[in-house]
Amino acid sequence: MYKVTVYVTYKDSVLDPQGEAVKGAVHRMGYETIEDIRIGKYFEIQVSKDEENVEQVIEEICDKLLANVVMETYRYDIQEVEA
Amino acid sequence: MYKVTVYVTYKDSVLDPQGEAVKGAVHRMGYETIEDIRIGKYFEIQVSKDEENVEQVIEEICDKLLANVVMETYRYDIQEVEA
Repeated sequence: MYKVTVYVTYKDSVLDPQGEAVKGAVHRMGYETIEDIRIGKYFEIQVSKDEENVEQVIEEICDKLLANVVMETYRYDIQEVEA
Repeated sequence: MYKVTVYVTYKDSVLDPQGEAVKGAVHRMGYETIEDIRIGKYFEIQVSKDEENVEQVIEEICDKLLANVVMETYRYDIQEVEA
């Protein structure tokens, strides 16, 4: 089995209003040393060991479904694990 | 400066309906070798180098704001980086 972790984040050039809102909340709670917060999505995907092109499948799924590639960027790690 | 990465995921005992929905969509797209998808949140937090208790601040923010500790669990990595 393969365990794939995908991280989807806004591109640096794109404003992250949700992250800004959380940063404001954190400051109001008194944590002034927090300089920036950006929020992303995180996917843990299990892929069958029968899949021969894990990398290709993951990239296709990210491009088509998990990330909006206009505004977001993604990266992933693939680990082979015992089922 | 410290760069902290926080991962918030549902506890294993908690159903992840959003992950189930994405898994269904992936199967309908023809990727049958995807066995499971779980979705979480991902935060990139910059903390000032003046903060002396980075770990404690991050845990407090996670407990109070970023994670619902009844249903979710979190983990984090702290990296010290040059500003």
